[in-house]
Amino acid sequence: MEQLLVDMDGVLADVYAQFLHLEFMETGIKQDIESLYGKTEPEAFAHYEQNVLSKNFFRTAPVMPGSMDGLKYLNSKYKVRVVSAAMEFPDSLIEKHDWLQEFFPFISWKQIVFCGDKAAVRGDVMIDDHPKNLNFFPGRKILFTQPHNILLSNNAWERVDNWKQLLKIL
Amino acid sequence: MEQLLVDMDGVLADVYAQFLHLEFMETGIKQDIESLYGKTEPEAFAHYEQNVLSKNFFRTAPVMPGSMDGLKYLNSKYKVRVVSAAMEFPDSLIEKHDWLQEFFPFISWKQIVFCGDKAAVRGDVMIDDHPKNLNFFPGRKILFTQPHNILLSNNAWERVDNWKQLLKIL
Repeated sequence: MEQLLVDMDGVLADVYAQFLHLEFMETGIKQDIESLYGKTEPEAFAHYEQNVLSKNFFRTAPVMPGSMDGLKYLNSKYKVRVVSAAMEFPDSLIEKHDWLQEFFPFISWKQIVFCGDKAAVRGDVMIDDHPKNLNFFPGRKILFTQPHNILLSNNAWERVDNWKQLLKIL
Repeated sequence: MEQLLVDMDGVLADVYAQFLHLEFMETGIKQDIESLYGKTEPEAFAHYEQNVLSKNFFRTAPVMPGSMDGLKYLNSKYKVRVVSAAMEFPDSLIEKHDWLQEFFPFISWKQIVFCGDKAAVRGDVMIDDHPKNLNFFPGRKILFTQPHNILLSNNAWERVDNWKQLLKIL
């Protein structure tokens, strides 16, 4: 059975929806998604650091559309590991764990990896929204479209725009 | 630079010392270390589950003798990753993170991996006290002696009894 590494933020968790919601609560401004294309998250969101460090940012993140049923299906077909770079924000560790338990209860604790650097993780296929993670990975690389990566292209990855497209190729 | 995977419990953290101390506080009995040979931790300690789940069990674990200077040296010679199976006890995630920050501050967040299953992690050399972790690892395997593994032998591992011996072979 092939080992599939699935990123959390930007693949399972819709962190852009969370940032947009929080910015709107703070400023009253609804940012147009197209205005965020090609910007990193700290560039895109004025209150990035304040929000990403705030209690429950990760615990209350919306689930990416299609990811619950999608990951359940992939979990029957592949040896799935959910891999998240949680170590940069240590308070997020338990929030991310509890979030996974709530929305993806079929993912056992044995399938979770929290790390500082995804180059540490072994697998056959990696799904991630960050090219920097895919670039160090020796296996099959799938880029999940998010506003920050939408302008990039590279023959080394396959790109999918949503979970429906992801399931078509896996 | 070779990648070195270093276990926490039983290699950096002296969890036996912690269990023995807590059992003594609860029962007034000092368990003889030789009486624990060949027993798993739940078999060795009457209050295992209560203690391992208690707040600050991991946060206050004593540091393994020689490990602070030892890991500092190895960190200059290898690409070190500290790998811990923290996911079984989710409350331990932040405790283990904070413990590492306190006693091994030269280990950056990028070098930490918390996982449910160590078969997920990539590296060249693995140091661990649990044969089950070494057995799935394709690289060089070093077993760090702890009472539960002291009666086992296997040509697939090199065994070291303490940090002094570990540093001699690395």
